[in-house]
Amino acid sequence: MAQKKMTIIASKGSLDMAYPPLILATTAAAMDFDVTIFFTFFGLDIIKKDNADKLKISPIGNPAMPMPVPIPTLIGCLPGMEAMATAMMKSMFKKHGVATIGQLLGLAKESGVKLIACQMTMDVMGVKQEDVIDGVEFGGAAMWLDAAADAQINLFI
Amino acid sequence: MAQKKMTIIASKGSLDMAYPPLILATTAAAMDFDVTIFFTFFGLDIIKKDNADKLKISPIGNPAMPMPVPIPTLIGCLPGMEAMATAMMKSMFKKHGVATIGQLLGLAKESGVKLIACQMTMDVMGVKQEDVIDGVEFGGAAMWLDAAADAQINLFI
Amino acid sequence: MAQKKMTIIASKGSLDMAYPPLILATTAAAMDFDVTIFFTFFGLDIIKKDNADKLKISPIGNPAMPMPVPIPTLIGCLPGMEAMATAMMKSMFKKHGVATIGQLLGLAKESGVKLIACQMTMDVMGVKQEDVIDGVEFGGAAMWLDAAADAQINLFI
Repeated sequence: MAQKKMTIIASKGSLDMAYPPLILATTAAAMDFDVTIFFTFFGLDIIKKDNADKLKISPIGNPAMPMPVPIPTLIGCLPGMEAMATAMMKSMFKKHGVATIGQLLGLAKESGVKLIACQMTMDVMGVKQEDVIDGVEFGGAAMWLDAAADAQINLFI
Repeated sequence: MAQKKMTIIASKGSLDMAYPPLILATTAAAMDFDVTIFFTFFGLDIIKKDNADKLKISPIGNPAMPMPVPIPTLIGCLPGMEAMATAMMKSMFKKHGVATIGQLLGLAKESGVKLIACQMTMDVMGVKQEDVIDGVEFGGAAMWLDAAADAQINLFI
Repeated sequence: MAQKKMTIIASKGSLDMAYPPLILATTAAAMDFDVTIFFTFFGLDIIKKDNADKLKISPIGNPAMPMPVPIPTLIGCLPGMEAMATAMMKSMFKKHGVATIGQLLGLAKESGVKLIACQMTMDVMGVKQEDVIDGVEFGGAAMWLDAAADAQINLFI
């Protein structure tokens, strides 16, 4: 049987939405899928050098976010609340043995997951190739489409 | 012809983003698709007991949200505005005969849609199996991947 | 070899999330894919008449948004900041020769991309057929499912 393929477009750069692409990609690689992640728009933040473990979560605009006590939106806007929400979520993950984004990125590379940075996003946001972690290829939507056209699973995250 | 399959990852817990997984799943089930929904991250909120009809919508961070009058972000942050936006959206849906999230969940179960709660999310967020509605299975990304690998349609919502 | 097919559900109406459906759709059409975009929920805003180039981006709730200087959430809530963030992003795209949403919509239609407006969303939000740009079909989730069931790529954006 031919190897199964999965591609993921990672378009978000918040801590919470950086997890799904990397958890799904590393799980699929462990199950012997051929996996490609295309980092575009805000998702490019995940693969900027020394940035994976600096991603933040917003304390506002997401009524489903678990907080120790309900935080009114007005309070969520105060300086320091983004840092607090980020620290709290990191601590919840760490306490339950979930790897950090940086660790998952490393695991993805070791597992042979192909990482592509969106060249158009880099141009628009002024990100240079040396600003991106090693082991990443550079390409556009056409490169992703080529991979996606014969993949069993394609996700936009 | 073999039965068509669809899987959906439901990762959001706001009222507006709880609708798409359930509307697509119940429509597909009515068209005789084999459907699986994997509830993960904030999407777990949708299947917590007695929670489906308590989901909220955020009045901020979404410039495309329809409001009777434009609401400046600063006003959207005031206490009470989240409740007002939620009530307004619920009333718009009700007026046009659209089912509630709780009704759609019930319909999904009756139609044979398979519901899976993400065990890792439950561990991290401290949600116990008895906190989740009946008829839900528990599993991880690997369980979803098994279903997705031979599905015609896979969506991350 | 049969023509490859892609469908996209466009559910967001912010400037940043209006780009991915249209860039992917026009790129795929140029590569000879048969492409369908289903505009639903806030995504309907993209195809309202004279609205494509009026979409806005929110300055808050997205910690990964590039800003010339970091903007605390509290400042992001002030009147005028949404307009400023929107103007800044538009200028970044223009400077790098990226087409506007209106231009991409026109290109999509010229390239034969099929545009479907979600009838349920229109009913709920009180949008009439004459409020939508020309060349759009009207239908529901079932119409999208029919197209998606034999497409190689299906995305929810």
